[in-house]
Amino acid sequence: MAKELSNREENYSLWYNNLVIKADLAENSAVRGCMVIKPYGYAIWEKMQAQLDKMFKETGHVNAYFPLFIPKSFLSKEAEHVEGFAKECAVVTHHRLMTNPDGPGVVVDPSAKLEEELVVRPTSETIIWNTYKNWIKSYRDLPILINQWANVVRWEMRTRLFLRTAEFLWQEGHTAHSTREEAIEETEKMVQVYAKFAREFMALPVIVGAKTESERFAGALDTLCIEALMQDGKALQAGTSHFLGQNFAKAFDVQYQSKEGTLEYVWATSWGVSTRLMGALVMAHSDNNGLVLPPKLAPIHVVMVPIFKTDEENDMIIAKMKEIQESLNKLGISSKIDNRDNLRSGFKFAEWELKGVPVRIAIGPRDLANGTVELARRDTLTKSIQPAEGIELYIQKLLDEIQENIYNKAYKFREDNTFIVNDWETFKTKIEEGGFLLCHWDGSAETEERIKEETKATIRCIPHENVIEEEGKCVYSGKPSSRRVIFARAY
Amino acid sequence: MAKELSNREENYSLWYNNLVIKADLAENSAVRGCMVIKPYGYAIWEKMQAQLDKMFKETGHVNAYFPLFIPKSFLSKEAEHVEGFAKECAVVTHHRLMTNPDGPGVVVDPSAKLEEELVVRPTSETIIWNTYKNWIKSYRDLPILINQWANVVRWEMRTRLFLRTAEFLWQEGHTAHSTREEAIEETEKMVQVYAKFAREFMALPVIVGAKTESERFAGALDTLCIEALMQDGKALQAGTSHFLGQNFAKAFDVQYQSKEGTLEYVWATSWGVSTRLMGALVMAHSDNNGLVLPPKLAPIHVVMVPIFKTDEENDMIIAKMKEIQESLNKLGISSKIDNRDNLRSGFKFAEWELKGVPVRIAIGPRDLANGTVELARRDTLTKSIQPAEGIELYIQKLLDEIQENIYNKAYKFREDNTFIVNDWETFKTKIEEGGFLLCHWDGSAETEERIKEETKATIRCIPHENVIEEEGKCVYSGKPSSRRVIFARAY
Repeated sequence: MAKELSNREENYSLWYNNLVIKADLAENSAVRGCMVIKPYGYAIWEKMQAQLDKMFKETGHVNAYFPLFIPKSFLSKEAEHVEGFAKECAVVTHHRLMTNPDGPGVVVDPSAKLEEELVVRPTSETIIWNTYKNWIKSYRDLPILINQWANVVRWEMRTRLFLRTAEFLWQEGHTAHSTREEAIEETEKMVQVYAKFAREFMALPVIVGAKTESERFAGALDTLCIEALMQDGKALQAGTSHFLGQNFAKAFDVQYQSKEGTLEYVWATSWGVSTRLMGALVMAHSDNNGLVLPPKLAPIHVVMVPIFKTDEENDMIIAKMKEIQESLNKLGISSKIDNRDNLRSGFKFAEWELKGVPVRIAIGPRDLANGTVELARRDTLTKSIQPAEGIELYIQKLLDEIQENIYNKAYKFREDNTFIVNDWETFKTKIEEGGFLLCHWDGSAETEERIKEETKATIRCIPHENVIEEEGKCVYSGKPSSRRVIFARAY
Repeated sequence: MAKELSNREENYSLWYNNLVIKADLAENSAVRGCMVIKPYGYAIWEKMQAQLDKMFKETGHVNAYFPLFIPKSFLSKEAEHVEGFAKECAVVTHHRLMTNPDGPGVVVDPSAKLEEELVVRPTSETIIWNTYKNWIKSYRDLPILINQWANVVRWEMRTRLFLRTAEFLWQEGHTAHSTREEAIEETEKMVQVYAKFAREFMALPVIVGAKTESERFAGALDTLCIEALMQDGKALQAGTSHFLGQNFAKAFDVQYQSKEGTLEYVWATSWGVSTRLMGALVMAHSDNNGLVLPPKLAPIHVVMVPIFKTDEENDMIIAKMKEIQESLNKLGISSKIDNRDNLRSGFKFAEWELKGVPVRIAIGPRDLANGTVELARRDTLTKSIQPAEGIELYIQKLLDEIQENIYNKAYKFREDNTFIVNDWETFKTKIEEGGFLLCHWDGSAETEERIKEETKATIRCIPHENVIEEEGKCVYSGKPSSRRVIFARAY
């Protein structure tokens, strides 16, 4: 292999980290907890962005941009919000450096202390609602349906590439509505947009549900989420959509005049997904050979590797490949001809497998003579000989098939690792093995907390889909419960 | 008018600021010097981004993302660089807030002081070259052609929406090459990409040239730029492309093994344009009625306003407009039907003029009967009656014509305001009137500085195009000179 990967089964965590680095997705930077997203990783993120942006616009949203900095006092205005974010803030206190009077380099200029410290946004509710205050006077100004693509900073102590980084890229939607019902509808609409994106583009079979009170976003009345199961049996929260009620409108005094002439507080939602999705993508599908990318997010759909001995052979093969490339281009299928002359084809094969390119084509002199190509699928690692004539149409169909297969495989994995658990002893055993545990819960934060303490499992969500409504007894306390929730250990 | 604008001729600066705010492009935020880019403004920026990104990719570049924060010590590694940026840095010193022990709100937690302060990137050369160090071993790793879309912070004391803000959005290209020649070629290629973008999309007749030594980017050996002339006769630097030599490679010890096996320092370029382009766009073309947007960057190409008395009339007109909209959609022309029922059409006309929509269509009952529409051009403010049948094709052609007309008008303005000046007295008079002054200059930083002190005029560039090479005498010192440079007062 081009670059030796760790074994997924032996050490999942190490496998993940190595894979992200070796497949050139991202790496740690010189700044603690901050990553460099490398071109190949960024190309995948760009594809995610483009699709999400399209879906946001189709649902009536527009983009805007709000300041990176939030005055410290803004954070305090919503009590739960500040509680949730104050402990992990990057704080700007000065606006100038000066030559070090006592040695080399530069030091902070003490005379350039800010009157009020600025926090690098961990999320933008406060600065945005402070802005909305000036935009909203009447019901005619509502709804406001705005999204922002931005970087945010949360000073996490333990970081992992894509999954938890001090700085990450995301989008945050912030909407303002005249009624409670409309805001709730928006909250649900957006979590469904995320679910659709995860399923259809990331090939990720997510479950839509609501967070329990203790897992909600700081300042939300309700947090909806999409939850996915990774190959090590741990859950990953892939996106959230929050019904914020009137909390931020009240904190920033945002009122509108209704049709009837009364003054009312505005209703709010916010929703976001981040570069964390990159981590979910890698963890959900990849194997010991490297990434497995769903075609809809793969920067390169097809890689072509020439197999040759003489320069003349090479020229003829490359010419054929350019022909194929042109017909692929016409179908909107991206391809790359790997004609590097200093690498053996086996090395190239391994490298493109590592990078998760869905389809590989190899052409040698005999293929050329026979009018065939050797085609390899990344998802199944199977090879076949195909006619070169019309190969673009074959590949077009195949890419759809691969997309579906990756989804189905992940779906089957989730089904195989979802368990109905009714008693505490089984729970404790099962949770060690990983997976989603469908259990009755008595609805109390206390029980939730105890289960977390004893097993590290949290309630991933109260599912909105495939709901099992039945009378039962809480798996921990034995108290009555009328529906099952999903427990798992999580990233 | 919908919202009263200031008069461009009376107070250009006030007119600009009012226009940016009233046309809903941007506004000042609660954070000193930081702006909120509103949806309409952001939609224009998105169009700029999409086109530039396409042009970068067509010239072989890929996107990536590097950390927002730069360790303080990195800045000091390149002597001129730190000199250029240290005085306007936002400095992060702490990573946590805590409940205020002495009152309400939160305060910085003194126990969460960072070991080394982090600077919010004012530009990313240092963090990127520190990263490139690990990516570059051999000539085979070169060139690296990377671009980043990001926010940056420079703590400017006097800020103006888009033109000079503490935080702004931009792209920064950072490339690494094995030879000096290749890096110089890249520097020139990218300034030409900017020039093409400015001319063809922004309808901005820019001049390409080189900065003098004292106007160069901090750390560059050569800075190329595009310079535009605004309607008040002041120049605006709209984009820069820097040949950085081996300065950053040496500062961060980035060497590669050449084909011949020797170790060599890598050659670098960087290049960027920012949301400042939005300011240039507004200042170059707009008038006392509001924005004048070149069709290629207008979020909405055509607005349609129904003129009606009865609901029945309105229904018929809207139906007709939807028909037109559909045929415009097919040609990729974006349109909006303004059917707000609480506003008079005169108000709507003024509002869409303010927002610079290139084409306005009004349809009344008589138009409907006659099979016509009233069509108004934003650039010339002229109206005409056109057949409704085939109007989409008429508009398609018209949009090209408008794009060209806006460019030609700006070009004529620049020509009319470019003067050959040979003596100091004329210089002093002319510079008060504004415009580009083509003058001989003795090439000394001292003369340049004195001219700046006495007149506030700077050398905008040593032009690369339409060069007037001739023997002459410096307009200030009388010393010999062999080519003219461009002087102007600038934003």
